[in-house]
Amino acid sequence: MSRFFSKKYKDLVPYVPGEQPQDRSYIKLNTNESPFQASPKAQAAVQEAAKRLQLYSDPECKLLRAKAAELYGISPDEVIFTNGSDELLNFAIMAFCDADTPAAFPDITYGFYKVFAQLNAVPYVQIPLLEDFTVNVSDYIGCNKTILIANPNAPTGLALSLQDVEKIVAGNPNNVVLIDEAYVDFGGETAVPLIRKYDNLLIAQTFSKSRSMAGARLGMAIGSPALIQDLRNIQFSTNPFNVNAMTMAAGVGALEDEVYFKENCGKIIANREWTTAELAKLGFTTLPSQTNFILTKTPAIGGKALYLALKAKGILIRHFDTDRLRDYIRVTIGTAEEMAAFVAAVKQILEENV
Amino acid sequence: MSRFFSKKYKDLVPYVPGEQPQDRSYIKLNTNESPFQASPKAQAAVQEAAKRLQLYSDPECKLLRAKAAELYGISPDEVIFTNGSDELLNFAIMAFCDADTPAAFPDITYGFYKVFAQLNAVPYVQIPLLEDFTVNVSDYIGCNKTILIANPNAPTGLALSLQDVEKIVAGNPNNVVLIDEAYVDFGGETAVPLIRKYDNLLIAQTFSKSRSMAGARLGMAIGSPALIQDLRNIQFSTNPFNVNAMTMAAGVGALEDEVYFKENCGKIIANREWTTAELAKLGFTTLPSQTNFILTKTPAIGGKALYLALKAKGILIRHFDTDRLRDYIRVTIGTAEEMAAFVAAVKQILEENV
Repeated sequence: MSRFFSKKYKDLVPYVPGEQPQDRSYIKLNTNESPFQASPKAQAAVQEAAKRLQLYSDPECKLLRAKAAELYGISPDEVIFTNGSDELLNFAIMAFCDADTPAAFPDITYGFYKVFAQLNAVPYVQIPLLEDFTVNVSDYIGCNKTILIANPNAPTGLALSLQDVEKIVAGNPNNVVLIDEAYVDFGGETAVPLIRKYDNLLIAQTFSKSRSMAGARLGMAIGSPALIQDLRNIQFSTNPFNVNAMTMAAGVGALEDEVYFKENCGKIIANREWTTAELAKLGFTTLPSQTNFILTKTPAIGGKALYLALKAKGILIRHFDTDRLRDYIRVTIGTAEEMAAFVAAVKQILEENV
Repeated sequence: MSRFFSKKYKDLVPYVPGEQPQDRSYIKLNTNESPFQASPKAQAAVQEAAKRLQLYSDPECKLLRAKAAELYGISPDEVIFTNGSDELLNFAIMAFCDADTPAAFPDITYGFYKVFAQLNAVPYVQIPLLEDFTVNVSDYIGCNKTILIANPNAPTGLALSLQDVEKIVAGNPNNVVLIDEAYVDFGGETAVPLIRKYDNLLIAQTFSKSRSMAGARLGMAIGSPALIQDLRNIQFSTNPFNVNAMTMAAGVGALEDEVYFKENCGKIIANREWTTAELAKLGFTTLPSQTNFILTKTPAIGGKALYLALKAKGILIRHFDTDRLRDYIRVTIGTAEEMAAFVAAVKQILEENV
């Protein structure tokens, strides 16, 4: 820290992304990336966009918003795009939280919510998940705070029903409820159909997971035109050209390729179910995931030991060294081949461990 | 504005980017873009990067930082990359300004400095330029504020000498002095050689202008490792994956093509000098620009009238409707053909105007 750094950030603890070691080639099951390339249509669009890089990107994202509006059955003024959904979440906390309007989110969820609250000097409460890692809906009714819920949640993989989401949204008419649907395409139910019924509902999605574009950085929010306009005001006061021209083109290409998208989601779901079943045979308990990852544990070996043993075998997964997660590992669902290699490695580790 | 929007932003006035009308095809001399494509090496790198979009981009920007370090004769920990230099400027104001450390910048300069200050609730003073639009160096000595100076300045095009920049940096040892070198490659003197002498000097650059990558969004800051670490802390608390994989690849490609870069800068400088000379023949007074744009006026026609007449002829330039700039137009320097068309159109307008 330099001697010039503002005191207001003296307690800030930056987010720590999943490791990306370069010492050898790994099977990467640690950062919830897709194992599939972005749609060929997205890749082709990028190549075209690269020819016009000298021109600023469209700060209005008109083409992309029109395409998304068509696909999701909404109006272009009900959607906004950002430089990944992280930027979107930060914009939302800037816009809808302050000293008088704290944030509320589960104690076990995406680790960045807390960082964004700290960054913006927003008070926050972390509401404990129930013993089985589910969200207790009644905890969120009338809580007088801006609510952030990842649905499905990370790193649990568990989803709330649309009915439960609606209860929370309806139960907080004077506060924004942000439903972070980063993983919704792998089996969850989207709340998009509710946006015209509730002016306090904001939905965040990302192209990082189900659309194989983590490296392109594209996030999306859907909500009432007034909420979207608030986010636009933040965008135009922060970084109007926040979405670059290549990512914008890739986004349009991706949205034009629903067949590829659905096929890939289907493969991930199938591989997830296969992996869960195989792990069950090996004595693992896995939370019923609606995402592209699973949270799983076995009494035979601790989470950290299993993480290290897998890493030594060239397979990266994620371990969270916190109270309720310590026994678990979080495993991203890759290709059928990758998951077979993962299961074989786990089997070997358990045998060596006896 | 929704009923949920935080009161803290109630007076926020978002930045207004230059117009990008789609009603017809224009000669675009209004947003200081390069008329040349990004380097073929950058374009080829993008195509490769598009094949791996499913993986997160490197939040450390290792390859790009190593390449920049090599080129600028600095260490990789003396440089950071951002999603355009706008993001960088915002990070710097977040990191180095607060209620106790106001910002100071010229009254006529890049319009976003004020917006960033307002966004972050940072008090600021706007120091008037002298009558001839130059920065009065003595105004900035010992001013006890975080100083932001665009050098060369926009929209004047005027540059401070390196000696004058050093006076300001040396004259504020307890405050960060940010020199925004967005336009430095068109004839200005960079302050990069001073960063090891002054730990309070931070330099911002962009790939938008001289490297033809406005649509890719890539900004860069150079300064002491401690200042850069502060900016990294903000980055990792805001948007760790702020630079996407395609832009990162394009940046490396661009830095590997110094011949193309220098050739393009040379062309812009030549076209600027030609345009300035032609305008002089038509009775215009042009500020001596060290950038890829000129600020120019004639007693024969007002700035707004000239802007409108040029637009009617299919040429977009920029007019600022503020006290000291009202008489002027700001014209981006394009290709030789574009500048010839611009001069011909101006000539015609002046003749029609008699």
